[in-house]
Amino acid sequence: MPKVKVSRRGLLGGGAAAAGVAGAFAVGRAGDGAPAAAATPLAYDFHGAHQAGIVTPMQDRLHFAAFDVRTDDRDELVALLQAWTDAAARMTAGLDAGAVGAVDGASNLPPDDTGEAIGLPPSGLTITFGFGPSLFLDADGNDRFGIADRRPEALRELPHFPADNLDPARSYGDLCVQACANDPQVAVHAIRNLARIGFGTVSVRWSQLGFGRTSTTSVGQDTPRNLFGFKDGTANVKAEDTTELDSHVWVDAGDDPKAEWLAGGSYLVARRFNMTIEVWDRQPLGDQEAFVGRTKGVGAPLSGGDELTAPDFDMPGSNGAPVIATDSHLRQVHPDFHGGAKMLRRGYNFVDGSDDLGGLDAGLFFLAYVRNPDTHFIPIQLQMAKADALMEYLKVRGSALFAVPPGVAKGDYVGESLFA
Amino acid sequence: MPKVKVSRRGLLGGGAAAAGVAGAFAVGRAGDGAPAAAATPLAYDFHGAHQAGIVTPMQDRLHFAAFDVRTDDRDELVALLQAWTDAAARMTAGLDAGAVGAVDGASNLPPDDTGEAIGLPPSGLTITFGFGPSLFLDADGNDRFGIADRRPEALRELPHFPADNLDPARSYGDLCVQACANDPQVAVHAIRNLARIGFGTVSVRWSQLGFGRTSTTSVGQDTPRNLFGFKDGTANVKAEDTTELDSHVWVDAGDDPKAEWLAGGSYLVARRFNMTIEVWDRQPLGDQEAFVGRTKGVGAPLSGGDELTAPDFDMPGSNGAPVIATDSHLRQVHPDFHGGAKMLRRGYNFVDGSDDLGGLDAGLFFLAYVRNPDTHFIPIQLQMAKADALMEYLKVRGSALFAVPPGVAKGDYVGESLFA
Repeated sequence: MPKVKVSRRGLLGGGAAAAGVAGAFAVGRAGDGAPAAAATPLAYDFHGAHQAGIVTPMQDRLHFAAFDVRTDDRDELVALLQAWTDAAARMTAGLDAGAVGAVDGASNLPPDDTGEAIGLPPSGLTITFGFGPSLFLDADGNDRFGIADRRPEALRELPHFPADNLDPARSYGDLCVQACANDPQVAVHAIRNLARIGFGTVSVRWSQLGFGRTSTTSVGQDTPRNLFGFKDGTANVKAEDTTELDSHVWVDAGDDPKAEWLAGGSYLVARRFNMTIEVWDRQPLGDQEAFVGRTKGVGAPLSGGDELTAPDFDMPGSNGAPVIATDSHLRQVHPDFHGGAKMLRRGYNFVDGSDDLGGLDAGLFFLAYVRNPDTHFIPIQLQMAKADALMEYLKVRGSALFAVPPGVAKGDYVGESLFA
Repeated sequence: MPKVKVSRRGLLGGGAAAAGVAGAFAVGRAGDGAPAAAATPLAYDFHGAHQAGIVTPMQDRLHFAAFDVRTDDRDELVALLQAWTDAAARMTAGLDAGAVGAVDGASNLPPDDTGEAIGLPPSGLTITFGFGPSLFLDADGNDRFGIADRRPEALRELPHFPADNLDPARSYGDLCVQACANDPQVAVHAIRNLARIGFGTVSVRWSQLGFGRTSTTSVGQDTPRNLFGFKDGTANVKAEDTTELDSHVWVDAGDDPKAEWLAGGSYLVARRFNMTIEVWDRQPLGDQEAFVGRTKGVGAPLSGGDELTAPDFDMPGSNGAPVIATDSHLRQVHPDFHGGAKMLRRGYNFVDGSDDLGGLDAGLFFLAYVRNPDTHFIPIQLQMAKADALMEYLKVRGSALFAVPPGVAKGDYVGESLFA
């Protein structure tokens, strides 16, 4: 039977060439309608001191998945992490998930790559792994994998916040994988192949696609807009500010004696905020801006200036009350009122079909990396849930917390510092 | 209060300039990981003999919505179609949905655009409208809008096909809107604003996002891959072949005496095919190729050649049976066995989170435009459902049929030939 085979690797000009593009930059995007992301790196190295996908310039698309571990066998879990590490390093370099490839294997065996990314470039893919509280102690209090005594103090299920209405099928998880790329088919391909590799050991608990980033993670990225129509992520911690990263994002070896293995890692908060966009869309422009505390156009604080101007929370308005309302989102979550605590946010907009009310099931899939959720997330979320004017238009349906281990050296596997 | 306002229009350099780019072509995409779509037109004119979004070079992203009409008032329905026409013409040109805009209106009124597309270019947006059978006669047999006698003979709910397992909440609809763009935020913005405009008159019945096109609609577009990992849409009707379009896609004035208003329009079949990708991924490569009838790498027929080589259904294999199996998808749906009938397909891949089995809720959202579903879709789908080897890996959960009226002249509204 005549048959010409070609692998993703082959289409990219050979594995060596594909690996060689890591760190290279594309020439830039034409104005074809994709969100502005000039000079997007073509491929990111999976290996490094920190995992990629945290301070990496935020890609345009997301596929996030939480997994339940279906085994109590520590060796099987470690073998999965090793296999995932290998596959993640390959896919982020634009290679097939496995060494055989999507179409180069024997006809009588399943391929070790699913094939839908054949011909697609690495697309800035990053793959970031995390460990949930239930990996350390399951719901019955079992130390399934002999790591309970290494559970970080801060790695507990998040408390119930006012207005939380959680769907357990959209919350929690033993493991998580965040795949970000500039092509959604590449992000989906990554999650799908990791799920395929984990078949029998893990199953997908929930997953979430995001189509539009809602933050900037590096200087020079344009601030994108969330589905309230407002710029989002203006004051995000930036990759270039290594002092802020050390203060607010990276776990230090001295932070927690039980969790030295987490040094160089972080905590990831994932929250699914449904927006009641149909109600929001009927609010007057002035009210929308008052709720947010910023103008809708340029995103300037209502106290004046431009997007990057510091807000003046004391400036009185015409009625004597502060021009930036006390219950505005800007004020409620501002670091000035939370001991200077900041987050590195990497959220995405989502629309997941329709709801039962004839509207869109739409909102913000909030992702934030913090050094310690007890100081950098929980107090801020609590304040927001209690007093933020935006909460009238938000419903939290999903929630999870993960410890994100440090980066992986070549030859090691993700989470090795926990299991070694 | 200091406040700088800026509209999407303003960011694009003025309404006149934005309108001027219609028909212009971008320079091309850099190799940043978006699917290859060189020289994507920046903006398409909403007006023309046919609706845009059918033969338009297929964009990378989709937001599709079906609506239920909540009124029995014909004038109210016509007013909605007029308002939708105006908004669609504006948004496809890169303007705000309404004349006031997202941020230029009075502070005490809701904006007439939701704002999340501020600063984004037109992104090749097309908006295509269709009318379902239930618009003509509702489930109780009521001629709500006085158009029952103009219902095309072929516009009936599709018959039940073997393996259909329809979810009514993902099927049917009085109206549909297909928004395609190269930026999902632009497609989502379009559907959301049309739903906002229709508030009180229509409600969203179901909607579907697609992240990867699965067909080529013009010569020179690379054939993309579906989530089986195979090229899809190789033999699609192409925009350049006007003879084929007239034979297979556009309704002719003489086709149906009750439906002269549909001349220059088409029928749109929408079907949600869930793929059991986890099972598929465990099938040997040779079996996958036998089911499809093509190689997975280059997409050549198993009888040889390259992607565009015509299949030889008589060529015997080593075991005496045809090398292209009789139950292969390629053979079961091939025009040679269906009186030459062809479709213009515009489907998209989707992943909508997870299913109850620990896998991904993933598949193909099938969209096809045909001149007559009775001759160009139903027999082919029936044959596929009965005898196609691929059906073991497919579950149909959603289904709908719409009549797609002809294009809109300036000053007219979509569907005017039906209501005038």
